[in-house]
Amino acid sequence: MDSNKFVIAYKPNKNKKINNILAIIPIMSPIYVIGHKNPDTDSIASAIVTAYLLNKWKEKGCGIIKVDDEVIPAKQGEPNPETAFALEKFGVSVPETVTDVDGKKVVLVDHSELSQAPENLDKAELIGIIDHHKIGDVTTPNPILFVNFPVGCTGTVLKLLFDWTGVEIPKDMAGLMLSAILSDTVIFKSATTTELDKKVAEELAKIAGIDNIVQFGIDLKCKLADVSNLSARDIITRDFKDFDMSGKKVGIGQVELIDLGVIKDRIDEIYEEMKKMKEEGGYHSVILMLTDIMKEGTELLVVTDDPSVIEKAFGVKLEGKSVWLDGVMSRKKQVVPPLQKAFA
Amino acid sequence: MDSNKFVIAYKPNKNKKINNILAIIPIMSPIYVIGHKNPDTDSIASAIVTAYLLNKWKEKGCGIIKVDDEVIPAKQGEPNPETAFALEKFGVSVPETVTDVDGKKVVLVDHSELSQAPENLDKAELIGIIDHHKIGDVTTPNPILFVNFPVGCTGTVLKLLFDWTGVEIPKDMAGLMLSAILSDTVIFKSATTTELDKKVAEELAKIAGIDNIVQFGIDLKCKLADVSNLSARDIITRDFKDFDMSGKKVGIGQVELIDLGVIKDRIDEIYEEMKKMKEEGGYHSVILMLTDIMKEGTELLVVTDDPSVIEKAFGVKLEGKSVWLDGVMSRKKQVVPPLQKAFA
Repeated sequence: MDSNKFVIAYKPNKNKKINNILAIIPIMSPIYVIGHKNPDTDSIASAIVTAYLLNKWKEKGCGIIKVDDEVIPAKQGEPNPETAFALEKFGVSVPETVTDVDGKKVVLVDHSELSQAPENLDKAELIGIIDHHKIGDVTTPNPILFVNFPVGCTGTVLKLLFDWTGVEIPKDMAGLMLSAILSDTVIFKSATTTELDKKVAEELAKIAGIDNIVQFGIDLKCKLADVSNLSARDIITRDFKDFDMSGKKVGIGQVELIDLGVIKDRIDEIYEEMKKMKEEGGYHSVILMLTDIMKEGTELLVVTDDPSVIEKAFGVKLEGKSVWLDGVMSRKKQVVPPLQKAFA
Repeated sequence: MDSNKFVIAYKPNKNKKINNILAIIPIMSPIYVIGHKNPDTDSIASAIVTAYLLNKWKEKGCGIIKVDDEVIPAKQGEPNPETAFALEKFGVSVPETVTDVDGKKVVLVDHSELSQAPENLDKAELIGIIDHHKIGDVTTPNPILFVNFPVGCTGTVLKLLFDWTGVEIPKDMAGLMLSAILSDTVIFKSATTTELDKKVAEELAKIAGIDNIVQFGIDLKCKLADVSNLSARDIITRDFKDFDMSGKKVGIGQVELIDLGVIKDRIDEIYEEMKKMKEEGGYHSVILMLTDIMKEGTELLVVTDDPSVIEKAFGVKLEGKSVWLDGVMSRKKQVVPPLQKAFA
């Protein structure tokens, strides 16, 4: 607690005399838990679940780090329909939006990349990172809690941290972690899925009262797969990340669909929008993964200065607007690494 | 396993015909666990203990990551006398030296800084980092295991990973982790010590059969404190770091002693050597912390162009060769920051 910060509580007083001070209340400086920009279900669910876990560490005095302040979940953007469905199903309210962390205490979840972090992270006090991605470019002046497992979802890491630090998992938190795992692993079909994700999801489903995990996964994914009400720009940017590939700016979006048929008529419209985005954003390449969950593959829509990188990366020549990549479902594991090599 | 790498086994044959091949045996590509340059007890002990843990994960199919290869501990430099004592006491052999990891699979322990890592880390396959320092500049193209806790020692993190993944801790590994914790936390007296370090050390002491933890810590530290066989130059430089303080070159060494008495007769000799080092190295100041572990303070030997910086930094006037700083034990936390302010 910063002892220089106080709230002064006044007694209501018609004479407005200043000596009617009731109490001087110190303002606690809370810790914000924040996922990446353009949040998916894991980023929002993990912020909520991490805040719950850290508040329990504070309350019980247990845990890996000493928590002295209130912990508040936050988000950097609006929940997508899948996330909104999960929050509603488990009766959890939408966290507040925080996009600038100047002067704040912060825990990052689901990323360790400055490009995906909130503004002014360098002016914040970073307390921890809980993630399941590649190690990004965030560095710290002091030792912090950094837990990154090469598993399918931050939710999986969090479930283990509950167990290991002896914190009981309530039904709503179990439901959020389960939703995040099913979302991130595309119902265990993504190449990022590990045995640990499956085992943890089964345990969480029991706590959350979900009898049929796969059916619940499809219910979740259906919410995201309905893109009929979205503009082309919204379809592209809903889950879109920027990458620096050997100095070139590459943007990669992903849309997961139950069946590619539902988006077939809109490919030309989306492609024109990607061209616009490439110009506006100064991209070398704008790429959109149209991932077919049932067929387990991805139609890769590409607007690029150099089509040869696609052939170098995936061994398939880009001739029209797109290529089909059989078995490819994960941006993180199957699209970003080969592209990074192709750009190197 | 890289299937391109094989050993060809020949049947002994006087005629040296090449068709006497007995078997083609694939070479497993092992995983090396390596601590930082200029290794201390934590860096060498944690490499050995992590290799043991990962080999158990491989054997039992448990653990946070899937381990398919043999895991081998390594070091980047010779064990200091304290480390050698711990290895001998618990009957563990000295690991091999690996300073270049080109083409190797690697787990880093006790650091995440490129400047402290083995050569060619960018050409290695980094599989994991287990550490307790600030987050350094190591980044990865893929998700890896990264476990960093803000505690006093990597040994503390490792003990928890054994417990959490259900691997029993044998006596020798417990002894090494305990030694590392006592070394890094200066028998729990360093400002970096946490409650978790103390709790974990007590549990390890029971397994390792150490009845008196503090006495064992003193026995350990005595080994490092025995400087009778070292030249004055070696005493100064064994743990010596250069700092840039507002454009001035300042070198600060530290020697931890059980009793300053043991070095009393050699102060003049050491002081003359510090003067030489100052001239040779173009230093503004050469400083040596003679830290008394039992008295919990530091005799600060100083050769400087400007004695007033010592008074500015520590509020004590430097009149002879040295000043006594009560309660000061950490270079990182208690000497460097006030000096940096004094130079600013």
